[in-house]
Amino acid sequence: MEFTVQQIADLLQGTIEGDNLSKVSTLAKIEEAGPGALAFLSNPKYEHFLYSTNASAVIVSDKLEVKKSVSAALIRVTDPYSSFSTLLQYYQTALIASKTGVEEPCFMGDGSQIGDNHYRGAFSYIGHNCKIGSNVRIFPQVYIGDNVQIGDNTTLFAGVKLYTNTVVGSNCTIHAGAVLGSDGFGFAPQPDGTYKAIPQIGNVVLEDDISVGANTTIDCATMGSTLIRKGTKIDNLVQVAHNVEVGRHTVIASQTGISGSTKIGNNCVIAGQVGIVGHISLADKTTVGAQSGVSKSVKETGTIIQGSPAFDYKQNLRAMTVFRKLPELQRDLDLLLKDKSTN
Amino acid sequence: MEFTVQQIADLLQGTIEGDNLSKVSTLAKIEEAGPGALAFLSNPKYEHFLYSTNASAVIVSDKLEVKKSVSAALIRVTDPYSSFSTLLQYYQTALIASKTGVEEPCFMGDGSQIGDNHYRGAFSYIGHNCKIGSNVRIFPQVYIGDNVQIGDNTTLFAGVKLYTNTVVGSNCTIHAGAVLGSDGFGFAPQPDGTYKAIPQIGNVVLEDDISVGANTTIDCATMGSTLIRKGTKIDNLVQVAHNVEVGRHTVIASQTGISGSTKIGNNCVIAGQVGIVGHISLADKTTVGAQSGVSKSVKETGTIIQGSPAFDYKQNLRAMTVFRKLPELQRDLDLLLKDKSTN
Amino acid sequence: MEFTVQQIADLLQGTIEGDNLSKVSTLAKIEEAGPGALAFLSNPKYEHFLYSTNASAVIVSDKLEVKKSVSAALIRVTDPYSSFSTLLQYYQTALIASKTGVEEPCFMGDGSQIGDNHYRGAFSYIGHNCKIGSNVRIFPQVYIGDNVQIGDNTTLFAGVKLYTNTVVGSNCTIHAGAVLGSDGFGFAPQPDGTYKAIPQIGNVVLEDDISVGANTTIDCATMGSTLIRKGTKIDNLVQVAHNVEVGRHTVIASQTGISGSTKIGNNCVIAGQVGIVGHISLADKTTVGAQSGVSKSVKETGTIIQGSPAFDYKQNLRAMTVFRKLPELQRDLDLLLKDKSTN
Repeated sequence: MEFTVQQIADLLQGTIEGDNLSKVSTLAKIEEAGPGALAFLSNPKYEHFLYSTNASAVIVSDKLEVKKSVSAALIRVTDPYSSFSTLLQYYQTALIASKTGVEEPCFMGDGSQIGDNHYRGAFSYIGHNCKIGSNVRIFPQVYIGDNVQIGDNTTLFAGVKLYTNTVVGSNCTIHAGAVLGSDGFGFAPQPDGTYKAIPQIGNVVLEDDISVGANTTIDCATMGSTLIRKGTKIDNLVQVAHNVEVGRHTVIASQTGISGSTKIGNNCVIAGQVGIVGHISLADKTTVGAQSGVSKSVKETGTIIQGSPAFDYKQNLRAMTVFRKLPELQRDLDLLLKDKSTN
Repeated sequence: MEFTVQQIADLLQGTIEGDNLSKVSTLAKIEEAGPGALAFLSNPKYEHFLYSTNASAVIVSDKLEVKKSVSAALIRVTDPYSSFSTLLQYYQTALIASKTGVEEPCFMGDGSQIGDNHYRGAFSYIGHNCKIGSNVRIFPQVYIGDNVQIGDNTTLFAGVKLYTNTVVGSNCTIHAGAVLGSDGFGFAPQPDGTYKAIPQIGNVVLEDDISVGANTTIDCATMGSTLIRKGTKIDNLVQVAHNVEVGRHTVIASQTGISGSTKIGNNCVIAGQVGIVGHISLADKTTVGAQSGVSKSVKETGTIIQGSPAFDYKQNLRAMTVFRKLPELQRDLDLLLKDKSTN
Repeated sequence: MEFTVQQIADLLQGTIEGDNLSKVSTLAKIEEAGPGALAFLSNPKYEHFLYSTNASAVIVSDKLEVKKSVSAALIRVTDPYSSFSTLLQYYQTALIASKTGVEEPCFMGDGSQIGDNHYRGAFSYIGHNCKIGSNVRIFPQVYIGDNVQIGDNTTLFAGVKLYTNTVVGSNCTIHAGAVLGSDGFGFAPQPDGTYKAIPQIGNVVLEDDISVGANTTIDCATMGSTLIRKGTKIDNLVQVAHNVEVGRHTVIASQTGISGSTKIGNNCVIAGQVGIVGHISLADKTTVGAQSGVSKSVKETGTIIQGSPAFDYKQNLRAMTVFRKLPELQRDLDLLLKDKSTN
């Protein structure tokens, strides 16, 4: 995709200084931009880059006073950062939307429907009796089992796997290799020391506006649904076990694991590599620090915890500070004990 | 799949109260069940749901005294929980078994054999000289390299990858995206600071009755086999390194990692996010608590450990209790030291 | 592949004792080797295996004095371990190189080029305008998005996914299920508690001689590139976030996570299950112990850290030693306090 500086300026309602016919085809940071790139300058601290950049055009503030010669065309706007963000959004949306049509071979089972303006990549598989909305992008090698429902404007990147009966809402993005609906890890110990699988016949339900990261796994419920509510964002390599419920607008960072039947509230922030035991609940707006191990329910809204096992993060911080000094503490105590025994 | 209450009662050798021609097509919890669902009541604590449920039928104890009107048909049996479990098992087995035949296009290399009554999904790949048993389900986009052996009744869900020479036993279930046989992580440091790959030419061997979770990775041995013994269950996103041996009927929860050449005993329970160093061994019936880091061999059967690094779990619990009070401990000690210096 | 003992001896410039026409087709450890296998004896401690092995041939030192009868043919060389390593290398290289040609169906978009002597497995997907070098092995079900560049002699195992614009150097090995180029996890909190995705339009760049493990995920940069430098080796299930830079010849073990915009130096060793926060940098030759949580930059070359949060590993070791004795420490302190109060 190639645009003239004039086209960009029109889109952003900006004014041009320099060559309005100069062409840009990519977006870049001002310090890294080469010919053909469009950059922006928002933070005055980076102004010196403006005079050395190889960018073909730079979005700048309409208040900026240019102090040296600039090779790039300037597009002046009220808020350069916001204007640039708008362009980034256009760019990414256009990139996805440019994928359209059906690449052969791909597979769609009997009784399945898909809305208009969709993309089905080669080697993608849609099972039987699926209902898939409009503007859906199904990248190559995606697997969609039987009876799956997917809302409008959802994108499944390459190699996503949705087991039978999975439900995905609208405006969701699921990244490559993520697996939704694999069996919950339920095995009943038998008297002879073996294990018997407990059938897992539920499903996974994602509401709208959800993002799921690459190679993340979300297991189906034993019965009923493992449920991720509207607007929640899940990073890469996260594990969500059977019958978990995650509330709305919650953020879960990479490599975190949530055990079976646990309920996470709305607007929580779970950092990376956190482990959460099964059958507990976290109140709304709970924040859990990285690598924490959460072993108890959190009842109060807005609680911040840290540690393994996790407790109040300030207390944890203080305890960790003393932890580092434990050898000195031991030495002091030994001295006191020695004193006492010699008295 | 739709059944009459009569058919279900016959199967469970139960007796019916209510409409024996009522139809059920799904299984659900009594508190969530809608029309067409079959539920069960085992725990007396949930009896009140019996009088409000929308289920079409409920399995109850033959001893239950019904106190109010019930809209659902009742199927009376000796042990409702056990009967329901039986149905769940039937349901899941039927779901998998309903997949049969070959969907095109799929790929099978020269010299490969597969037993009868199998399923090969579209875009599945079987290399050369593979020997695959009967009643095997190979879901779409599965990759099976050359010279792979698979026993009877094994299911490989979508996108499973088995490298060349992998051996999988009978009655195994491998979930979507799991990788068996990738190269062990072996690199020899060179004098110039670079690394040289140590060839990894062994394989992965799974005995019978094994479950492997979604996106789990099991590396091939440098030479010989990385070996998982009969009946062991492995959760999602677990890492098993080269030349590891895991004993029989051991359970390994999600996101645990086992380093190279370590041997895990029989009937062990390894919780989630555990890390185990290489070249050690864990005795039979070892239990390792969540997020532990196991750095030494465990020699005594039945040991329970916790912590990073892990030691006796009771000792760890006591140490963690004091850990939280470290700031107070430091303060008390400082007071004593001050006393001493002023005496 | 089958060779005579004579052929092996010629390759290794060794001398033969025994049947020079005996045939070998596999490599094995001396204690596990069966008929048709070639083993080696380097460590004198294992000499007794020489007299009981079923191997068809064994590589031994030209200085070895044979004390009993041996059924295997012997190939005498100066350094048996080094000779065997050479054979392992040949074996693995031959195994990969034996894959050649194009299996149908596979997909290649308009404007894409690929060098000679390549392998493209069935159901592999190459998007539009890709530039792929010579001797490249693309296993079944690999996904390569548009505008991807790949150097010579690189191998992508089954189901690898490279998003649009990814760049992979020469002599790289990417294991099954790894994902390169998925969106960075960037979401801007909005005043109403929802999150808005920050477009991620950068890419992933791998220089030469890099190994990436199975099901590892490397996110694209927000802008610019997430960059892995020459010779670095990454294990399975590792997470590398957006805009991370990893230096040359660094080793990262399984299940480690590196947060956004962090820079790792050259020749670092990062053990398993480590978490590293975003926007910090680690000096060259930094070593991070397993399960550590790195929360601060490391400025000095050659630093070794451990713990969560991580600090000097010796200090951490000393603190952990006292940690285990915390209950005794508390008890001693309580006694002193009691003494004081009764004085």
